[in-house]
Amino acid sequence: MSVLVVGSVALDNVRTPFGEVENALGGSCSYVSTAISYFSDPSIVGVVGQDFPQEHIELFKRRGINTAGLEVNEGGKTFHWTGYYEYDMNQAHTVDTQLNVFADFNPQVPADLRRSRCVMLGNLDPELQLKVLDQLESPELVMADTMNFWISSKRDALIEVIKRCDVMLMNDAEARQLCDTASLQQAAKQLMALGVKRVIIKKGEHGCLMFSNGNYFSAPAFPLEVVRDPTGAGDTFAGGFIGFLSRSTELSEDIYRQAVIVGTTMASFTVEKFSLDRLAHLEPAEITQRCAQLRRHTEFPQIEIDVRETANT
Amino acid sequence: MSVLVVGSVALDNVRTPFGEVENALGGSCSYVSTAISYFSDPSIVGVVGQDFPQEHIELFKRRGINTAGLEVNEGGKTFHWTGYYEYDMNQAHTVDTQLNVFADFNPQVPADLRRSRCVMLGNLDPELQLKVLDQLESPELVMADTMNFWISSKRDALIEVIKRCDVMLMNDAEARQLCDTASLQQAAKQLMALGVKRVIIKKGEHGCLMFSNGNYFSAPAFPLEVVRDPTGAGDTFAGGFIGFLSRSTELSEDIYRQAVIVGTTMASFTVEKFSLDRLAHLEPAEITQRCAQLRRHTEFPQIEIDVRETANT
Repeated sequence: MSVLVVGSVALDNVRTPFGEVENALGGSCSYVSTAISYFSDPSIVGVVGQDFPQEHIELFKRRGINTAGLEVNEGGKTFHWTGYYEYDMNQAHTVDTQLNVFADFNPQVPADLRRSRCVMLGNLDPELQLKVLDQLESPELVMADTMNFWISSKRDALIEVIKRCDVMLMNDAEARQLCDTASLQQAAKQLMALGVKRVIIKKGEHGCLMFSNGNYFSAPAFPLEVVRDPTGAGDTFAGGFIGFLSRSTELSEDIYRQAVIVGTTMASFTVEKFSLDRLAHLEPAEITQRCAQLRRHTEFPQIEIDVRETANT
Repeated sequence: MSVLVVGSVALDNVRTPFGEVENALGGSCSYVSTAISYFSDPSIVGVVGQDFPQEHIELFKRRGINTAGLEVNEGGKTFHWTGYYEYDMNQAHTVDTQLNVFADFNPQVPADLRRSRCVMLGNLDPELQLKVLDQLESPELVMADTMNFWISSKRDALIEVIKRCDVMLMNDAEARQLCDTASLQQAAKQLMALGVKRVIIKKGEHGCLMFSNGNYFSAPAFPLEVVRDPTGAGDTFAGGFIGFLSRSTELSEDIYRQAVIVGTTMASFTVEKFSLDRLAHLEPAEITQRCAQLRRHTEFPQIEIDVRETANT
């Protein structure tokens, strides 16, 4: 049940209406792998600099995350993102991005991980995502995330990634930008026409939509009175999703839907505190309770009703 | 199974990226009552001018809508709204509002309708909504809609309406404005603290949320590849919702949830064409099929999973 995760490991400065943190653990690899750790055995491939605190490595290890593929570049500094959120917590504003050692990231998948069955390609240069795919031996489930920057700057490589992965994850604005349509339905169709089997479109506080051939699933977000920091929500979703899937031998529509709900649940914890302050310290019962609540939030009995005919119109 | 509907009857000029119409039938009364007509017997209370085309009255009658309470003011012109939608179809832009005879609207509920069991107060001056309530004899289910204009200009009257109705309907921006919070959960709590039993928050393409004491229901919108004109979607939702409820003797949480799905379904037809061009000409099977589809779009099996403990953290 090993899941390979490739992506960024970062130190973030984040400010929201509810507070701020400096040099907090962040990056797609961190959120994805920590979410997976509640369900499966994550292995990460990423790079950090000499400034990366040992305590974060310790956290990864305590969560059972295999860090053999985490390169420590002693000559450089860790990827550093500075941003803030205002009243509209769906919108991240970037103040500064220092790629540092991430600028020369050349992901090397350790030999014993090249046969990983499940792979999550976090948001990074699609050319690097393709390089990772080239190192793998017939993975069963490849999932990829991306961002607006790659859509405009590396469109062809991104489309190649979409062709080669099984589940494509993007947010609503990205799907609209990539497919040049206001309709998320049309965007998902276009993406599937490229060859990807499943498309998940994240809509922040409005939940997400999952499209596949002949199936459509709409999942709400978990309702929270206070969202303190949305950073990492999408990555946490991806981790819960693929972590749940990696335990299943049969990947049916029902299992995929349950995986969406597990991902949604995990994301709801991340946003309740800054960084991984909540995600890294969950009790099993908290997770299963929210999954059950999401079912109660959406279920309704079949509707049997005699609708009246239209009279002479 | 009579449902009383009070609100505007209008002639609309609407432009969207998909076309435009002039002097098209509109107004909350028109959409609400037409949606109800598939399930129950609507009676409308409203006012039009001498310019109101007879063909629209004929349409109401063909749909079984009781127009005894529709006053025709021979000295004036019908309420006329001109607006447009751009790429973001969730946002209506008003170009011109001519209240005309609606400016002096003084709703008079015909004597035989004062015992109506179910009442929908469409978006109008909350002082008029209160006047209508004063004319009624112990209705079982009163539902009210409103808009941003009344939140800023007649806040006290609006709060009185909220106290006296059973189901309050508003969109997400209105709920945030009225309750001065970004959290829809907090907004719904505040509204229920005023005394209303149920709050439905409409989110356009993202569906709606229904709050009541101890219950929370999240419903998606029906997915459409093309939305031609969103005008009337919220009113159509209200009509399908209250029309379905009016047939039921027991108003349980399950029945309310089904009513939300019926309202969502009816609204999905309205937005597929301009004015009531689609809503007024539905086949029963179209309605029941979309209700069933919405269930398939949201259902997932209960999740049973052994979540791993957090190790020493």
